[in-house]
Amino acid sequence: MTPAAPAYRRLSVEERRSQLLEAALGLFAHRAPEDVSLDDVAEAAGVSRPLVYRYFPGGKQQLYEAALRSAAEELQQCFAEPPEGPLLDRLSRALDRYLGFVDQHDAGFSALLQGGSVVETSRTTAIVDGVRRAAAQHIFSHLGVTEPSSRLRMTVRMWITAVEAASLIWLDDDKEPPVDELRDWLVEQFVAVLSVTAGRDPQTAALVQALAADG
Amino acid sequence: MTPAAPAYRRLSVEERRSQLLEAALGLFAHRAPEDVSLDDVAEAAGVSRPLVYRYFPGGKQQLYEAALRSAAEELQQCFAEPPEGPLLDRLSRALDRYLGFVDQHDAGFSALLQGGSVVETSRTTAIVDGVRRAAAQHIFSHLGVTEPSSRLRMTVRMWITAVEAASLIWLDDDKEPPVDELRDWLVEQFVAVLSVTAGRDPQTAALVQALAADG
Repeated sequence: MTPAAPAYRRLSVEERRSQLLEAALGLFAHRAPEDVSLDDVAEAAGVSRPLVYRYFPGGKQQLYEAALRSAAEELQQCFAEPPEGPLLDRLSRALDRYLGFVDQHDAGFSALLQGGSVVETSRTTAIVDGVRRAAAQHIFSHLGVTEPSSRLRMTVRMWITAVEAASLIWLDDDKEPPVDELRDWLVEQFVAVLSVTAGRDPQTAALVQALAADG
Repeated sequence: MTPAAPAYRRLSVEERRSQLLEAALGLFAHRAPEDVSLDDVAEAAGVSRPLVYRYFPGGKQQLYEAALRSAAEELQQCFAEPPEGPLLDRLSRALDRYLGFVDQHDAGFSALLQGGSVVETSRTTAIVDGVRRAAAQHIFSHLGVTEPSSRLRMTVRMWITAVEAASLIWLDDDKEPPVDELRDWLVEQFVAVLSVTAGRDPQTAALVQALAADG
């Protein structure tokens, strides 16, 4: 027997859903949501448009939110880092993974964070905020802080926002400076802003001392 | 003659428009846009709903964008500071005015910057981005820089984003720490992040030296 054409394998509901999300993520990663149609998603997944609607009856909005949730989970996995070794090395490794994600999802990442997208809603904003909160939680946990002072909390959240801004500018600037330099620069800024807050907050002062003795 | 009831003065088109915008800004300042109706605006301005529609036939969206544009102009005036005296004092004064604006427009300011609002569009996003760009331009102009290096530009834009984030957290935290402390802290962070960039960029290094010698 000559080899047959690849069998049209029947996917389980979960597999099919994943396949559609994967195709959608691939498209949303490189185009603004308004420039992606359900036909594009169907074509990228090699299925019919009605099939996409069967899985996502809410249409593009629902598909976009599901894709965003899946991207948010992937992004949160970037932050996971074993609590071992010097703290700033852990931060560097997490930033490396985060910047890899930004690099890989460039246009979609920009469209999402820059706001004003037609598919942006209070739900999509909540998903993005969830990622920011998760990032802050990871940082506090690595710093060994269970109850951050309001000044420490503000400092960490400001730095996270600044990292986001840096990512968007980096994409705009054709990914300059090189990712390794950007990463080191962001780590240095983290130490610098914590050091400023240390002058106003004893909890942060203790952390900065520990960071200096670390590694 | 006993004093008559205040005459119902006929306003010019421009006066009426300003009056409606003023009323709208007052409402948008303390409530999320989705919680403000055209009836509320008509009532606050003491006019009929059809009159509001006559001036803003596009309804709430148009009124919101016009109010936002007017708020953006007001915000940009906060940044205007004569190019005299020590640079960090100028920055302090501009931040004072900016934080006064944030204080005064609290809920509206949060709703706008947090995104996901029903009235957010690419146009409203562009207005907000315009304010950010104006802020960066003011900073470069005070620093005496006409062509910022990409690293200096990134640093200043990151700091501006961090200031925005701080404003939102400050509103969330019931305006703690006191505004004077927040202002000084933000100025210190400005110097700290510039100093970090100075290690990677000769233009920024020269500025940091000048800042240290300044005042």
